[in-house]
Amino acid sequence: MDKGIALGGPRRKRLSIFRLATLLFTAACIALVHRYYRHLRLDPAIPKHCENLGPISAAEFQARQNSLAKTLVELNASAYIAEPGASSLFYGNISQSNWKLSERPLLLIITPQQLEDKIEAKVFILTPVFEAPRAKMLPISSKNVTFIEWAEESNPYEYALSVLFETPGSVFVDGQMRNFIVDGLQEAHPRGTVSTAPYQIKRLRERKSPAEIELMKCVNEATILSIRAVREKLYFGIRESTAGAMMRATFTSAGLQDGGCLVLFGENAALPHGSGTDRALGKNDFALFDCMASLHGYRSDVTRTVALPGSNIPAEHLKIWRDVHAAQTAAIVTAHEGVIAAQVDKAARASLNNSKYFTHRLGHGIGLEVHEDPYLNGGSKTVLETGHAFSNEPGIYIVGKVRKTRMIERHVPTLSQVGVRLEDCFYIHENGSAIFLTAGVGGQAKSPWSP
Amino acid sequence: MDKGIALGGPRRKRLSIFRLATLLFTAACIALVHRYYRHLRLDPAIPKHCENLGPISAAEFQARQNSLAKTLVELNASAYIAEPGASSLFYGNISQSNWKLSERPLLLIITPQQLEDKIEAKVFILTPVFEAPRAKMLPISSKNVTFIEWAEESNPYEYALSVLFETPGSVFVDGQMRNFIVDGLQEAHPRGTVSTAPYQIKRLRERKSPAEIELMKCVNEATILSIRAVREKLYFGIRESTAGAMMRATFTSAGLQDGGCLVLFGENAALPHGSGTDRALGKNDFALFDCMASLHGYRSDVTRTVALPGSNIPAEHLKIWRDVHAAQTAAIVTAHEGVIAAQVDKAARASLNNSKYFTHRLGHGIGLEVHEDPYLNGGSKTVLETGHAFSNEPGIYIVGKVRKTRMIERHVPTLSQVGVRLEDCFYIHENGSAIFLTAGVGGQAKSPWSP
Repeated sequence: MDKGIALGGPRRKRLSIFRLATLLFTAACIALVHRYYRHLRLDPAIPKHCENLGPISAAEFQARQNSLAKTLVELNASAYIAEPGASSLFYGNISQSNWKLSERPLLLIITPQQLEDKIEAKVFILTPVFEAPRAKMLPISSKNVTFIEWAEESNPYEYALSVLFETPGSVFVDGQMRNFIVDGLQEAHPRGTVSTAPYQIKRLRERKSPAEIELMKCVNEATILSIRAVREKLYFGIRESTAGAMMRATFTSAGLQDGGCLVLFGENAALPHGSGTDRALGKNDFALFDCMASLHGYRSDVTRTVALPGSNIPAEHLKIWRDVHAAQTAAIVTAHEGVIAAQVDKAARASLNNSKYFTHRLGHGIGLEVHEDPYLNGGSKTVLETGHAFSNEPGIYIVGKVRKTRMIERHVPTLSQVGVRLEDCFYIHENGSAIFLTAGVGGQAKSPWSP
Repeated sequence: MDKGIALGGPRRKRLSIFRLATLLFTAACIALVHRYYRHLRLDPAIPKHCENLGPISAAEFQARQNSLAKTLVELNASAYIAEPGASSLFYGNISQSNWKLSERPLLLIITPQQLEDKIEAKVFILTPVFEAPRAKMLPISSKNVTFIEWAEESNPYEYALSVLFETPGSVFVDGQMRNFIVDGLQEAHPRGTVSTAPYQIKRLRERKSPAEIELMKCVNEATILSIRAVREKLYFGIRESTAGAMMRATFTSAGLQDGGCLVLFGENAALPHGSGTDRALGKNDFALFDCMASLHGYRSDVTRTVALPGSNIPAEHLKIWRDVHAAQTAAIVTAHEGVIAAQVDKAARASLNNSKYFTHRLGHGIGLEVHEDPYLNGGSKTVLETGHAFSNEPGIYIVGKVRKTRMIERHVPTLSQVGVRLEDCFYIHENGSAIFLTAGVGGQAKSPWSP
């Protein structure tokens, strides 16, 4: 027994050191695993909301190209030319994700072609010759595309315009085209003018088709559903960056692309485009989520200013929320086919008593770009037409403290720095009325607790 | 003793299960730690190479602005206007990293100002009013900047040109400006023309100062040092993506920003801009690294086609490497102040017997942009001046197999798909000769094993 005890003693001692080491090591491992997988556990997943919607059909691309060709003939023009961007995505399914801009022009060129009794579009791609194999892999939607290859030592613009030999005349270019390319085209086209496409062409893209509206509804709906799901998982102390990461993961689970949010807590929301700090969420804070995502190229843009079940939001801030909500309502009620864009902006502003804290325009056009023509601002003379789609995003931003001046309110604490924005996009329906693209999931927010 | 043994038996058994579990758990943890820290162990770190170099001085910015102002007066022009980009970075220290382009114009405007006996520049920033607080945080290098704030409902271009009231005349804009902004400026300037800045202005940025050349030397040297360090750590079976990640980490350790490489192994290098697959490195493969990084805004561009100590590169491929190397030498020998750019391209091409497999131009200007004016191609009439800096990057790209036609070579295996490019940047020294920016660390590669 003595020997047994003598043997057992050291063993127990060795064992206890071994156990302690194991315990520490296990704790370290758990910490590491936790760190590694933390984001996986937090991110709320939501069902794919838009799985039943496919991309724009080949027939619709063809119709767009032919509408453009007819408009070119009406305008007595011989071609429309765009660099990779939203317009080339609209007419040819070529985006800047497919083809990054460089100093070597790659251009989409569409010309009208008279075929017996109708006008059809002819589609060309101007490509650097050594990039031609890659250009030919672009997912261009067209019955047939002619590739024009320019060699390094040649003038690409002369090649581009060589397709117009039989029909010289005005050439219209996309408004986003870089200036040196416009210059190059103009120099190579002494017999005609090269200028920005006029409104008759721009409106072909501005007015959305039923298929486009369906995609835009779905991506905006899924964006709100994602914000709601993430709000459920917020907690006091969470950082703006963590909430932003949760949003990105949730967008991915929802089947959306390029999803992301500007997340601003408390006083950080007083700067509409953010402050650059990474604030933790407090009990008295609003959390502002300004989110965007895309579905088959079409964009969403939704802003919600929310609170948590346990939040203790100052009454003045809640009043601001309700005022902004009322302004959003005033704008959608005013928007209608035939109304001038500036009037919609004015309605929201009037609802807020022309507050100096509503520092930005009411909204922007939306579609293949998050911000695109036309705009809802005080200077916009655009007349709203069916198929137009806009954001409706009034906001109040109070930087620094505001001292109340009325005697009766002297006992109320001064209003702390705050920002509230509410944003839903809408479109002009065939019947002329404005309808929220988010209507399918409830439209406007109901309260900070019911976004 | 029996009791002792009886007690010891189960304990030993429990212990052994406990030990086994601990062992497995430890193995799992080690695997996880390994996965988590793998990249840290692999990435070769190199010393910060350019710590002694600061950014461009305030005095040099002032001198650039004043040179521009003098040139504007010589050209009888009243302003130069640029969007955030390389030119605004050159004149005002505003890059697209500082300010992302949007539909709301933010413009750098420089006008000449007659002060007694000299001409000085006056610097303006046109900013959306609600973005003004952020605009005022831009690190603009100027003695004093005047901010012009435009409200959402106003015409920003009228505000921009309001600073010219006393001196109407031509307005020059940067070649990268978006077309809709050029249009807006022209509409708001009926008394004068708005056009792209001519060569007299462009060359102010094209010809580098001694301080710029020092930065460009250092960033190109550090880029080569990084490639050499990573090559030492390559192994057969490594993926292009892993080698790319090693390069990025090594650039960071070297103190460079925005570092990255196109990494192409074996036949993938036959497409100059890559194939999109993630190939593993084989014994018979060249590894092509086309790398870029930046230092205080100035860019490097270096390509090396390398092999490993154990590589077994086909003799035909080694011959291609030597031919490309000879072409690079032919180009640098030809480049000199006063030579026409096309001649340098021609020299490299002649050295390769005008091979159809040298599919792209010889090189591009480099500075605040990786690719910028002027270019070294067969069509370029630019005369090389002191301070000009270019890449010198001949390459041979053979897609698919090439069957030898000479009878005597029938027994030689057909040449497999291959790509070789060698790239070093050079500048035109004060004395007129061309000097590699990489000369401080040996200049051109010596062989695939000595890059």
